[in-house]
Amino acid sequence: MLGAIEAGGTKFVCAVGDETGRIIERVKIPTTIPKETMGEVFKFFKRFDVTSIGIGSFGPIDIDQDSPTYGSITSTPKLAWKDYPIVEKVREVLDVPVGFNTDVNAAALGEATFGAAKGLDSCLYITVGTGIGAGAIVQGQLLQGFSHPEMGHIVVRRHPTDTYQGNCPYHGDCLEGMAAGPAIEERWGLKGVELSGRDDVWDLEGYYLAQALMQYILILSPKKIILGGGVSNQQHVFNAIQTHLTEFMQGYVSIPELSTYIVRPGLGDDSGISGALMLAYKALENK
Amino acid sequence: MLGAIEAGGTKFVCAVGDETGRIIERVKIPTTIPKETMGEVFKFFKRFDVTSIGIGSFGPIDIDQDSPTYGSITSTPKLAWKDYPIVEKVREVLDVPVGFNTDVNAAALGEATFGAAKGLDSCLYITVGTGIGAGAIVQGQLLQGFSHPEMGHIVVRRHPTDTYQGNCPYHGDCLEGMAAGPAIEERWGLKGVELSGRDDVWDLEGYYLAQALMQYILILSPKKIILGGGVSNQQHVFNAIQTHLTEFMQGYVSIPELSTYIVRPGLGDDSGISGALMLAYKALENK
Repeated sequence: MLGAIEAGGTKFVCAVGDETGRIIERVKIPTTIPKETMGEVFKFFKRFDVTSIGIGSFGPIDIDQDSPTYGSITSTPKLAWKDYPIVEKVREVLDVPVGFNTDVNAAALGEATFGAAKGLDSCLYITVGTGIGAGAIVQGQLLQGFSHPEMGHIVVRRHPTDTYQGNCPYHGDCLEGMAAGPAIEERWGLKGVELSGRDDVWDLEGYYLAQALMQYILILSPKKIILGGGVSNQQHVFNAIQTHLTEFMQGYVSIPELSTYIVRPGLGDDSGISGALMLAYKALENK
Repeated sequence: MLGAIEAGGTKFVCAVGDETGRIIERVKIPTTIPKETMGEVFKFFKRFDVTSIGIGSFGPIDIDQDSPTYGSITSTPKLAWKDYPIVEKVREVLDVPVGFNTDVNAAALGEATFGAAKGLDSCLYITVGTGIGAGAIVQGQLLQGFSHPEMGHIVVRRHPTDTYQGNCPYHGDCLEGMAAGPAIEERWGLKGVELSGRDDVWDLEGYYLAQALMQYILILSPKKIILGGGVSNQQHVFNAIQTHLTEFMQGYVSIPELSTYIVRPGLGDDSGISGALMLAYKALENK
C-alpha cells in the first residue's frame, strides 16, 4: 500500500492507496505547528502497512538530492515550518522510502497519470487560489532544474485601466501580486466567490492569466494546460483566457484548439493527493 | 564519422567530426534557395563516409515525430524554404539516420556536452542577434512539448522612458521586438557594433534581457544560462543584466552567483555546429 501526503499551508491531506490512483482511506489535518500536525500524520499512517510515502508540499522546498538540506521546507513565511526537514522526519518515523516534490508538481503528475493529461508526456498544472503556483511534466519527467519552478511570480504587463498596485511582498505587481485570490479581493472589495456574476472581474483575471499562459507556452510548449484552484470555478475565466490568449499570440505559434487545451482538473480536488501517490510509487521504484 | 548541419537564415555550416566534439572539416554555404544550398551541402557530405547527420535549423520547424510534416521547416518568412522537408531530403540523398532540432536547441546541447554547461543536466542557451531565440536542456533532454520553444517572443514590460514601439511583425513590443539587433538599430539609429561605448544602450538592453531571464529562471530553473549572438560581445550587457535581474527578483528565489551563472558560450561560435554533431550521434544511437 502506498502513502501520500498533500502538505498545504492550511491543511494536510494524508491518504493510502495504490498505483492505479485508487484512494482507500484519507484524512484531513489542520496545518498548525510541525509537532502537532506531523503527530497526527504519523498516527494515520501507522494504522497501515505502507511501503513508501509521497509528499507534495507547499514551498519553497529543497528538492536537490545533492543538497545538505534536501527534503526540507525552506524559506516559507509560515515560520514554524521554516527549515523543517519533512522527508527526514517521515523516513525516521515510518522507515520507508520517501518521494518529495512541490504540491503543484505533484498535481501535474497526478493529472498526467490519471487525469486531464492522462497518456501525455507533457502538461502544465496551474492553480490560482491564495497564491499562484504551477508545476509541469516535461517529456515524462517532473520539471526540475537547480530548483523547482516558481512560475507564479513571473512578470506581467499591467492592464492599461487597472490601477490596483499589486500585493506580492517581493515583486508588487507580478502575476501572483495581480491575479491571486487576495489581489482579486483587495482590488474589488469582495471575495472571488462573491463576484461570480461580474464579467469585468473575470475578464481582467483572464487577461493576466492569458499573459502567463503565453509565457508558459512559448517556453515549455506543454501538451495540455490544467487550471485548478478557486478561480477555475468561474467559467467566464476560461472564456476570457481564450479571448486574450488568441489576441496576445497573434497566430505566431500554432497552438492546440483552446477549448480542449486549457481545461479544468480531471481529478477535481484530488490532483495533488493522486500525484503524491505516484511520488510514493516512484520512490519505491527508485529505492 | 558524424555529419552536422547548422542551417541558418544567411548561411549553412556543414561539418564532419566525432562524438568528442572534434570537427575534422567544415564548410560555409550561403542560404539561397533549397536546390542550390542543399546541392552544395550534399556535395560536401558525399566526400566523407558519414554514419548519420544532425541538423540544427532555423525555424519554426516541425520536430513532432508523429506529425506528417515532421522534419520540415514550416512557416518561415524565407519563402523558398517554407514547408521544405529537409530531413526527408537528407535521408533520401545520403541514406543515413538524421537528427533534427532547432538551431538554439542544438546550441544548448553543444554547450551542455562540450561547453560552458559541460557536465550539467540542465542549461538554457539564448542568442540575441537578428532575432532572439533560446533552447534548453532539461534533466538531460532537449526541451520539447507539443513543439519546440519559441522563447524569443515572450511578453516584456516596457521601460518607462523607452518610447520605441517595437518591430516584431506579430507582437510589436515582445522581447524580440524590443531587444533584438534590428530593434537596437532602429531605436538608436546605429548598428549594435557602432554603439559599443554607449552604456545607456546596453543598460536598456540588459533591462529587457534580465526580464526575459527572470521568466526563464522562474519557469525552467536552468543550472546555467549561456548568452550568445552579437549582443554578447558587449561586456556591459552582462553587467546590466546582473544589476536588473537582482533588482527584479528581489531575492525571492535563491539563484546561483550571477557572474558565473550567466556566461558567454564556452564554444564561441561553435555551440550550434557542435550540438548538431551530438544530434547526429543521438540519431545513430536511436537508429
